[in-house]
Amino acid sequence: MNIVIIGGVAAGAKAAAKIKRLLPDSSVKIYTDDTHVSYSSCGLPYYIEGNFEDYRTLLVRSPEEFKQSGVDVFLEHKVTKILPQNKEIQLENGETVPYDKLIIATGARPKIPDIKGINGANNIFTIRRIEDGIAIRDKMRSSKRAVILGSGYIGLEILEAFVKNGLQVDLIEHNDNIMPRLDSDMAEIIRVRRKSSAYKNFHIHLSDTISEVKEVSDKLLITTENGEEIETDFLVIASGVVPNSELAKDAGIRIGETGAIWVNKLMRTSAEDIYACGDCAEKTHIVSGKKVWIPLGSTANKEGRCAAINAAGGYSEFEGVLGSTVTRCLSTTIAMTGLTEKEAQNVGFSPVSTIITKHDKVAFMPEASEMTIKIVADKVTGLLLGAQAVGSIGADKRINTLTTALLAHLTVQEFGNNDITYAPPYSTTIDPLLDAMNILCKKINRIC
Amino acid sequence: MNIVIIGGVAAGAKAAAKIKRLLPDSSVKIYTDDTHVSYSSCGLPYYIEGNFEDYRTLLVRSPEEFKQSGVDVFLEHKVTKILPQNKEIQLENGETVPYDKLIIATGARPKIPDIKGINGANNIFTIRRIEDGIAIRDKMRSSKRAVILGSGYIGLEILEAFVKNGLQVDLIEHNDNIMPRLDSDMAEIIRVRRKSSAYKNFHIHLSDTISEVKEVSDKLLITTENGEEIETDFLVIASGVVPNSELAKDAGIRIGETGAIWVNKLMRTSAEDIYACGDCAEKTHIVSGKKVWIPLGSTANKEGRCAAINAAGGYSEFEGVLGSTVTRCLSTTIAMTGLTEKEAQNVGFSPVSTIITKHDKVAFMPEASEMTIKIVADKVTGLLLGAQAVGSIGADKRINTLTTALLAHLTVQEFGNNDITYAPPYSTTIDPLLDAMNILCKKINRIC
Repeated sequence: MNIVIIGGVAAGAKAAAKIKRLLPDSSVKIYTDDTHVSYSSCGLPYYIEGNFEDYRTLLVRSPEEFKQSGVDVFLEHKVTKILPQNKEIQLENGETVPYDKLIIATGARPKIPDIKGINGANNIFTIRRIEDGIAIRDKMRSSKRAVILGSGYIGLEILEAFVKNGLQVDLIEHNDNIMPRLDSDMAEIIRVRRKSSAYKNFHIHLSDTISEVKEVSDKLLITTENGEEIETDFLVIASGVVPNSELAKDAGIRIGETGAIWVNKLMRTSAEDIYACGDCAEKTHIVSGKKVWIPLGSTANKEGRCAAINAAGGYSEFEGVLGSTVTRCLSTTIAMTGLTEKEAQNVGFSPVSTIITKHDKVAFMPEASEMTIKIVADKVTGLLLGAQAVGSIGADKRINTLTTALLAHLTVQEFGNNDITYAPPYSTTIDPLLDAMNILCKKINRIC
Repeated sequence: MNIVIIGGVAAGAKAAAKIKRLLPDSSVKIYTDDTHVSYSSCGLPYYIEGNFEDYRTLLVRSPEEFKQSGVDVFLEHKVTKILPQNKEIQLENGETVPYDKLIIATGARPKIPDIKGINGANNIFTIRRIEDGIAIRDKMRSSKRAVILGSGYIGLEILEAFVKNGLQVDLIEHNDNIMPRLDSDMAEIIRVRRKSSAYKNFHIHLSDTISEVKEVSDKLLITTENGEEIETDFLVIASGVVPNSELAKDAGIRIGETGAIWVNKLMRTSAEDIYACGDCAEKTHIVSGKKVWIPLGSTANKEGRCAAINAAGGYSEFEGVLGSTVTRCLSTTIAMTGLTEKEAQNVGFSPVSTIITKHDKVAFMPEASEMTIKIVADKVTGLLLGAQAVGSIGADKRINTLTTALLAHLTVQEFGNNDITYAPPYSTTIDPLLDAMNILCKKINRIC
């Protein structure tokens, strides 16, 4: 069996390792235009921040280690074509490589907005690959001011890194909230917490965007749509990503409504013997049943594993995602799972919600701090739909308790019986999640 | 409607407040032989440790606050009899009090082992009520050495309090492990972690117990069964609790196989118009379906609420417990939910298990530390049965993710799809729970 994988960061690397374990005698090859394989892209902000000095800490498995386990890695080998009829791929160097099974794990790339003066200008960065992280870190260390465009989780993590390194940072977000995926009432909680941050060397510009970038000697002069002018040493663009689905599209493979590669539960594409997984592939949302594109490293690993099992002749289903995310920004934890209230409305539920602000442990414990949780449920069925949390480091723990509830399609009433662990250093006697369930029960007129 | 509640710490206090909200015109009275009402008994070890100075921090609601909301609290009013035929209770002072509905929330009391010399001796303490906490704290502050009998969570929490206050502490446990409810392989992990504790001023004696206590001037001389002699300033007995079910038993109310008061899902006892809740009541285990007696404050609150709703003429079911607990001992977190492997065996499952030791966050994060998780599942059905975790402060978060899975009766295979939040400061890319599911899938010969 001859298996070819395009891309090797998370999904591709996972798939290669798994296939080799399942079929030790198979030939497994990874082709990638990247300079590295099998690394933690999510770790780049923490490398930039300075949590560790050597970028190689981010590497999970080197090409040599892959070689030892029998997987051949071809770095900087760009694949230019997939030829499903011939069951082969074509490389930029003209070479063709045959496959029995092909796994597409081409990932995603930063979305570059259409801004005047941006093309070819120096000191503009995006963050995706190892060399992006190295370049941003080097630049940061010789700089005093930085501008970040976009306040999704990557934008916020980079903000934390720069602020902790003493730079004066301007973050520009075109929505009226940071973390625009959150409901606006939760984004407001973040805004209030931000004000009390110990760090003051940053400024957030909402409802604004960059209209022009000018190079002035070795600096950038950034003009915003609202007419602000910001002189900065460099600009990081973190305004979203797009799936690398062109290679598949050009080969006639079906692209989903989200622009990512359509796959079924087995991670099979519309073409025979071709699988797709990771950030290039479309996902199914477990709560809404709708197709979504929420690219995350944790999902990429699961999908890579699933694609590998099926490509190797086994059987594995991947149910989909809950859109669970967590991020840290200046000691605030922002976590969510499932649908927000606005998303729930958009997909046809009748959402009700409650917001609870409570201590994360019993108030008399010295380390107790405030945490705010929003829970969304369907008024008609009582089904739990999603949750968002903002607070200190433990806020994510409540969200993980709920991911399982969404996975199991529990109702508010069912969850109300949950026997969550309690001791004063860990939670309040009545966990905020259970308080929320009691309130929601009343809102949906259920006996509980 | 005239509602009488016996006991007012957690379940009783909760029930009183809830009934008054549901039926504002009802008469609600709490009778208790205690000196306080509505307090955090679980907070006593943290009061002793010195996290706060004033014991009143532990009081949730004072008798005066109850009075304002229309609930009459009768402190130090011991109830000596329940007369179901007359629908009245009798007090020690001879008075009788009629009721329309009675809620028994008499709690539990420390179990006193049969040790030579223990009766009437000074400087021997148990911990349950506010005055126990005050007395132990005062004694601790004027002492250099302490002995604790029993290493359940209360014993371990008191150990932490004494050790942090500089006492030399001997902890005696008759089982061959501390936290004897855990499986022995997990107890072994605790033992190893204990060795690396920064604190050295304690000694744990396993497979031993106290055979005799002698008063020698103002000290105690403790002799153990293995022949050790320990001179100490005082002894704390933390070797378990027993339910206060005698009052109910004497009234002909059914006592369950566990020795606690039998109740149905509505928290009703075998006698008409009489409910029981909290530590005096028997519980149903959600995983095994068996009757158990696991007395905990978090359960007491839920049961008090359920009993109140039903006593007030509403309808509420309490499904039961998972036996979820968490405790902290010298910066080690010990948490569990559901059945241990030995418990699973005892109730008739065919348990398989896996133990994963992994970092609690990505290893390159400076605050990463090791955590060990054991997951137990049924080999025949794949049903998840329970989990135990030992590690740093975040170890409890994995257990709460699993409480929901046990509540929803998920299988290993179903849980494997869980979309748990991931970012480097919060977990590893593949959460240890998902690693565990993959291993368990293989052990139960399932495709996944």
